[in-house]
Amino acid sequence: MAAAELTAHALIAQHRPTLDQALEAIRTRAYWSPHPEHPKAYGENGSLDAAAGKAAFDAVLNTRLDLGQPGTDDWVGGEVSPYGAALGVTYPHADVDELLPAMTAGQRAWRDAGAEVRAVVCLEILKRISDRTHEFAHAVMHTSGQAFMMAFQAGGPHAQDRGLEAVAYAYAEQVRTPGTAEWSKPQGKRDPLTLTKSFTPVPRGIALLIGCNTFPTWNGYPGLFASLATGNAVLVKPHPRAVLPLALTVSVAREVLAAAGFDPNLVALAAERPGEGIAKTLATRPEIRIVDYTGSTAFGDWLEANARQAQVYTEKAGVNTVIVHSTADYKGMLANLAFSLSLYSGQMCTTPQNLLIPRAGILTDEGPKSFDEVVADLARSVDGLLGDDARANALLGAIVNPDVKARLEAAAGLGEVALASREVSNPDFPDAVVRTPVIVKLDGAKPDDEAAYMSECFGPVSFAVAVDSAADAIALLRRTVREKGAMTVGAYTTDGEVEEAIQEVCLEEAAQLSLNLTGGVYVNQTAAFSDFHGSGGNPAANAALTDGAFVASRFRVVEVRRDA
Amino acid sequence: MAAAELTAHALIAQHRPTLDQALEAIRTRAYWSPHPEHPKAYGENGSLDAAAGKAAFDAVLNTRLDLGQPGTDDWVGGEVSPYGAALGVTYPHADVDELLPAMTAGQRAWRDAGAEVRAVVCLEILKRISDRTHEFAHAVMHTSGQAFMMAFQAGGPHAQDRGLEAVAYAYAEQVRTPGTAEWSKPQGKRDPLTLTKSFTPVPRGIALLIGCNTFPTWNGYPGLFASLATGNAVLVKPHPRAVLPLALTVSVAREVLAAAGFDPNLVALAAERPGEGIAKTLATRPEIRIVDYTGSTAFGDWLEANARQAQVYTEKAGVNTVIVHSTADYKGMLANLAFSLSLYSGQMCTTPQNLLIPRAGILTDEGPKSFDEVVADLARSVDGLLGDDARANALLGAIVNPDVKARLEAAAGLGEVALASREVSNPDFPDAVVRTPVIVKLDGAKPDDEAAYMSECFGPVSFAVAVDSAADAIALLRRTVREKGAMTVGAYTTDGEVEEAIQEVCLEEAAQLSLNLTGGVYVNQTAAFSDFHGSGGNPAANAALTDGAFVASRFRVVEVRRDA
Repeated sequence: MAAAELTAHALIAQHRPTLDQALEAIRTRAYWSPHPEHPKAYGENGSLDAAAGKAAFDAVLNTRLDLGQPGTDDWVGGEVSPYGAALGVTYPHADVDELLPAMTAGQRAWRDAGAEVRAVVCLEILKRISDRTHEFAHAVMHTSGQAFMMAFQAGGPHAQDRGLEAVAYAYAEQVRTPGTAEWSKPQGKRDPLTLTKSFTPVPRGIALLIGCNTFPTWNGYPGLFASLATGNAVLVKPHPRAVLPLALTVSVAREVLAAAGFDPNLVALAAERPGEGIAKTLATRPEIRIVDYTGSTAFGDWLEANARQAQVYTEKAGVNTVIVHSTADYKGMLANLAFSLSLYSGQMCTTPQNLLIPRAGILTDEGPKSFDEVVADLARSVDGLLGDDARANALLGAIVNPDVKARLEAAAGLGEVALASREVSNPDFPDAVVRTPVIVKLDGAKPDDEAAYMSECFGPVSFAVAVDSAADAIALLRRTVREKGAMTVGAYTTDGEVEEAIQEVCLEEAAQLSLNLTGGVYVNQTAAFSDFHGSGGNPAANAALTDGAFVASRFRVVEVRRDA
Repeated sequence: MAAAELTAHALIAQHRPTLDQALEAIRTRAYWSPHPEHPKAYGENGSLDAAAGKAAFDAVLNTRLDLGQPGTDDWVGGEVSPYGAALGVTYPHADVDELLPAMTAGQRAWRDAGAEVRAVVCLEILKRISDRTHEFAHAVMHTSGQAFMMAFQAGGPHAQDRGLEAVAYAYAEQVRTPGTAEWSKPQGKRDPLTLTKSFTPVPRGIALLIGCNTFPTWNGYPGLFASLATGNAVLVKPHPRAVLPLALTVSVAREVLAAAGFDPNLVALAAERPGEGIAKTLATRPEIRIVDYTGSTAFGDWLEANARQAQVYTEKAGVNTVIVHSTADYKGMLANLAFSLSLYSGQMCTTPQNLLIPRAGILTDEGPKSFDEVVADLARSVDGLLGDDARANALLGAIVNPDVKARLEAAAGLGEVALASREVSNPDFPDAVVRTPVIVKLDGAKPDDEAAYMSECFGPVSFAVAVDSAADAIALLRRTVREKGAMTVGAYTTDGEVEEAIQEVCLEEAAQLSLNLTGGVYVNQTAAFSDFHGSGGNPAANAALTDGAFVASRFRVVEVRRDA
């Protein structure tokens, strides 16, 4: 590393305090983030302001993004923004027989650098990504369809937080075992037995990150940084509709690795031709020892069953439930739920789908409300929230792909429509498909309705399901989580026994529970360093973001011992 | 827990200091053990001395060991000591459709007790097992065939150490996340967003421990205690030839659980009829969410492929290599190797099998030694070590089963025999099959010899393999670890470059390396709290005893959050 532009010493001096704060945050789980959420916070100390970020994004459109990777045999790309325009960016297509061996060349030096240097190199990557948050925001917006502010926050600081959190967990896990130990075992009157031992965290091999369409950075960074920080090379296979945010990420990672004297091929991109489906091929290559995946249950299950040579971390699909039993803040509940259903057109793995409401109605601070009143009031709240087109566009974003639109349209036929979906026009992006959520009434006692509410209907579709009682709701919650999985569960109740019973189901079925949220925190949002995203204990995901289990199996510890 | 004979308070007062010492030991990896190795250390403070332990063992022979388990539909057992006598003990055979549901009944209370109470209950179980070490020693001796002193130490204090180590890791992992957190996110001039969060470690479900014949307690305790300490119920399925040590363990666990006010059915035994093969059935039951296994590669691979509903931790078979390149202590090396080959008749997963020796000979402090001289001197060392029958019996123990004897006899036909195996008579146990190790010369350059040294030959069989050079030895080491796995690697060299190259192979292939051992520590022994047993990173095992990865996925954390 003699010629390195970034020395380990300088990187440690710069980033160790941040790493220490992150380590403290994951211990206390109090609020913390080093990444500003406000767009105006950027523009100083080397970070791009709004105009510069937009210019940087525009400059990459219709270009070939040459990452300087070995084994590039073609240039591919076909992203079209959910807001209308083709991005026109092409990316290297890899001959994996050449690229994969090249990715292992730098692994020894990366391993020998040790956990702390790897951590601060990762933090430098995150710092440079953070500086370009405005640019990344446009890239996320025009691949995921998120509205700008959401793409900025979720795709920028929140994703960077999740990456940093993964680095902190990875670092903490690796330093649980000391680098060396002197071992001296008493032998009574004889001399003790003494050994000198060294312990080295060693990588698994090459990690594969399979990115998703809706949150390419937020869902991608935890696995990417957890693997890299534990010494593995990382091959990034983005969703074909959301390549740019991860390609830019790879570009920054390669730039920092090279500047720090490491082989940039420790991080590489695997873009693909339309319909090429390289994920299956890559995931089962013997060199690939770790797979991180966010996406459909079908492919997640396939990976778990077939990528047997690898540690496989999946976030799949689930059916998220909110039990609406009673509330001391009816207006707050309605506003909170309306926002949760609307945000990013319900295209979050955490968006509530089934609202379980007793058919006899609920008790509230505004008196008893019938099932129909609750549903109608919720529909009115959504309407009110999205009545203004500018505000609707800012919350909803664009429908990410035609499948979501098709499901939305089909949902209206599943039952009585309590709130019809409405087209919203977007003056800035006339070609964007923008839709408000649909709420459909179903009956938990009708066997015909079960197929609808027991399947994931990804997108702006919610079912108001009439149930017989709190106990009925809780039993359905349990069955839904157990059979279909859930990334989130919400509940509104003022009854201690009902709350206790809901909590018990969530503990037994391993589902993350938000209770009586009526303010500015929503069931579909989790904060890094404090909230777990998923539990890893129900069918929706086999891993949680982020805990010890998410990092501990990404490396092994090799001991060398000798007589002292 | 009102009626509990053991209160949480009392258990914490008694065992928390030991837990804290264990937590410190796994951090520093210095020598530590609370379990005395010397048989004479027992007999006070409630522990059984030698005579009382033997009497307790004798008293259980030819009895029905009634554990008071629900769903018992038969009594089974057919253990015959490798030293000759039938044990005559019968055990409950379970109707698993009745037993498994009964095991879940107590899980909620066990979960709600929290990590600290679970840890100290586990420590009380270990304490009562420790008090009965003399009794367990006979049980281990007469199921594994280990000589008494080894059965005492490896089956007693060393196994208890490994169990305690697992409890410490499990506890540390669970308390990484606090029980509660107050989260407050600044909102500029507005009030901060505030949430109250609780975090609860929740169990996976029922854990299945599949025990082994040779080290029923040592290899069984880590999984058993890691699962129990993380809140899971544990079903213990012993090897049909080694039921008693684990049945006694289950008995103690049930007694302590009940005394502490918990459901004793949280730990249960699943003994089987000859040839019943219940492990496959149990391992794929939906209630079983964790499997720990030690045994053959074939069944370990089967479990990994088929027990897909569970977290599966396997220790399978490997081919252990020692590279003999050069030494500054020829006598010490020979003595150390001779002991390693002889201990428990090589029936350890850690016993060296392939000794790779340059065909041109090696450099030593006694001058150059030819390949033939090294092999002959090693044979002489083994002969010297085992020349006295009493000493031979104390080191070798008995051959555990007819398969080992058959392999030993067949090995003599694989090449030139440098040291023939010899029958040793055991005056105390005339029916015991006691054999000294065989050393067979093979040639790494002869394709015909490869089948022998590239297969695991479990038992007292070692191959002295002539190799062309240090580089040739290192290449063969790499290939052996990569293709066959290794629990241990040993090496003797005075050459810094050779040492470095061997170390690099071990780091890249994730094998645990012992260098230049010439004293009283042997390549086939690992010490809890300090040495890792296996790496989990090569085909011999997918887990290491014990690290964070061994415990982190045995539970999940469920968060409940609400507006503050």
